[in-house]
Amino acid sequence: MVNFEYYTPTRVVFGKGVEEKVGSLVKEQNGKKVLVHYGGQSAKKSGLLDRVFASLKEAGIEYVELGGVVPNPHLSLVYQGIELCKKEGVDFLLAVGGGSVIDSSKAIAYGVLGGADDVWDYYDGKATAQAALPVGAVLTIAAAGSEMSNSSVITNEKTLIKKGYNHDILGRCRFAVMNPELTLTLPEYQTACGCADIVMHTLERYFTADTTMEITDSIAEALLRTTMENARTLTREPQNYNARAEIMWAGSLSHNGLTGAGGGRGDWATHQLGHELSGLFDLAHGAALTAVWGSWARYVYKQNPARFARLALNVLELPAEGSVEELALAGIEEMENFFWGLDLPISMSEAGLNLDDEKIHELAVRCSFDGKRTVGGFKPLAQQDMEAIYKMAK
Amino acid sequence: MVNFEYYTPTRVVFGKGVEEKVGSLVKEQNGKKVLVHYGGQSAKKSGLLDRVFASLKEAGIEYVELGGVVPNPHLSLVYQGIELCKKEGVDFLLAVGGGSVIDSSKAIAYGVLGGADDVWDYYDGKATAQAALPVGAVLTIAAAGSEMSNSSVITNEKTLIKKGYNHDILGRCRFAVMNPELTLTLPEYQTACGCADIVMHTLERYFTADTTMEITDSIAEALLRTTMENARTLTREPQNYNARAEIMWAGSLSHNGLTGAGGGRGDWATHQLGHELSGLFDLAHGAALTAVWGSWARYVYKQNPARFARLALNVLELPAEGSVEELALAGIEEMENFFWGLDLPISMSEAGLNLDDEKIHELAVRCSFDGKRTVGGFKPLAQQDMEAIYKMAK
Repeated sequence: MVNFEYYTPTRVVFGKGVEEKVGSLVKEQNGKKVLVHYGGQSAKKSGLLDRVFASLKEAGIEYVELGGVVPNPHLSLVYQGIELCKKEGVDFLLAVGGGSVIDSSKAIAYGVLGGADDVWDYYDGKATAQAALPVGAVLTIAAAGSEMSNSSVITNEKTLIKKGYNHDILGRCRFAVMNPELTLTLPEYQTACGCADIVMHTLERYFTADTTMEITDSIAEALLRTTMENARTLTREPQNYNARAEIMWAGSLSHNGLTGAGGGRGDWATHQLGHELSGLFDLAHGAALTAVWGSWARYVYKQNPARFARLALNVLELPAEGSVEELALAGIEEMENFFWGLDLPISMSEAGLNLDDEKIHELAVRCSFDGKRTVGGFKPLAQQDMEAIYKMAK
Repeated sequence: MVNFEYYTPTRVVFGKGVEEKVGSLVKEQNGKKVLVHYGGQSAKKSGLLDRVFASLKEAGIEYVELGGVVPNPHLSLVYQGIELCKKEGVDFLLAVGGGSVIDSSKAIAYGVLGGADDVWDYYDGKATAQAALPVGAVLTIAAAGSEMSNSSVITNEKTLIKKGYNHDILGRCRFAVMNPELTLTLPEYQTACGCADIVMHTLERYFTADTTMEITDSIAEALLRTTMENARTLTREPQNYNARAEIMWAGSLSHNGLTGAGGGRGDWATHQLGHELSGLFDLAHGAALTAVWGSWARYVYKQNPARFARLALNVLELPAEGSVEELALAGIEEMENFFWGLDLPISMSEAGLNLDDEKIHELAVRCSFDGKRTVGGFKPLAQQDMEAIYKMAK
């Protein structure tokens, strides 16, 4: 095992009707003027925004609002939010939405108080944020885990570059209000993408080059089994509150560090490969991950076939038959079957992307920063490896 | 499932050599004058205290010290600590030890800033702390989970009454420095008591009257299996660093709310029954729990035999044979075998307590507050139930 830090200061308030507590939660954090940040029309139509506003009013808290966050959230709206916060004297950011809205809120929070002239500098690795406005979240999509994670991912829509910035203290939400009822009406595709993202956040940690802790592995496996089972349930019963709750809590636990404690830095190649797809083609994050995961897995599994075999046995619950290699490959196939069963793509063409070799080369060039970096902790991948994986994922 | 809150703000710094970071961690928390609180001679002899002092000095932090914490920590030392903090202008409490030292530190922290005239009022349910000094921990025993929990248990050594006080915000350590190496030299009995305590913290949550979440149940089961396996390893290989690490991390996760999320209030009768034994007879906490657990389980299992059967299958890994009731009872026996295999008592007489019926009656009177309360969420127990369980546990 590897020395680790674990820091999850976010106060989670979970269950039916909990969004009514949002005003008192902001008050506890000494918020006096809030920017309520959200996405499209669904938060308005569902009445959620009105309930949030009412709760803030009841707590005597002023607010302004900024909607319009899109999946793979745009840098331009972040700039707009920063200006608005400065102009209005906002001292607390309330994200009402999924990971995109929370990530956009975190970026605004860095932008207002971080110290750099341009908020993109943090994402571009050119600066470190010195401070940030506090952020709270009312979660409406179980997926990204941003409500408990230290990370934020933003897309510069002019260059189509998608980059993440992690800050272990400033990047954490003060609270996360999590009512699974709010996810009951999510479209099937969005639910499935969310479940895939949750599974992937644990898989990225599970496949590490380091020796792991058994307690972490067994918790990770329990979480993966539960997530997969409930994801399948939701394809049949999207209105199942308990299944929504299981998935929502799994989303937070999958990305708050628990499922990687002591296991070192994990892999994360699939995320990097997927980021290029969603950045360039605006493909949903979860679908971008499932489109390449199987190809990544077949390309790298020989690095540690026993690890893939363990996944096959303990998560996919395959019988212990055949060689370790056979079991490893059967597990990869079974995981792809799971994604496929959620109607998610397991190749780029299934995701509607029919890319020629030139385009694939461009993806690998971008993902490797023009050959300047490798990605992947389980097996480091150079530009030619990335190109090979993208080709396998055609 | 039941609505829940989950709040674990403690920054965990885990692994080899991490105690050297304690000075910078206190500094991060703006501590300027620290009370270093500890137990007996082992922290001195091992050189740990010297390393802690050196780290504080290097960070430019002043400190005073107060040793002498005993298992089932005494109220009188808490009073002494409060006086010392006030006199010396202490603004940060550093607990170097196990649960007893951390609990004593939390009590001192409440005593200095809580607002009530007598710190015991919080434990006695007569007052709520309004503030507390910040507390950090350097953990040397994996057991109580106090480093991440919201609770503190103190014994009034004059009345032999042992009581807990929980505060979801003020009762949390700011950081927990957890180096499993520090536990390598623990005596066998203390190691075993710690493992039992860890198992019990999850079992108390597992046996609840409420409907649970599958993700929580499966994480709890994973944690129980891992803890039991590594506890067995430590009976043979006390110097096994990895096993010590698994147990240490399990100790924190077992009592930070994770293994009970969404499951309501759990049971906790075994803790209440055990508190009387350790309060009156100064029996180690873990041993007091194992001495009564089996009797509690046999007394209550008919409330929900399927729950006990699930424990038998998923944790004790018994074959799915016989009726649900038979499986439930076989599971209880197997859990007792586990305790017994760690050389822990599974009855009061094995713990050296040969109590007559009068004494047992007194225990039940005390535990039920003279018949004024029931204990236990899985099945509420009145005074006569407690008496019956103590008799079964003779």
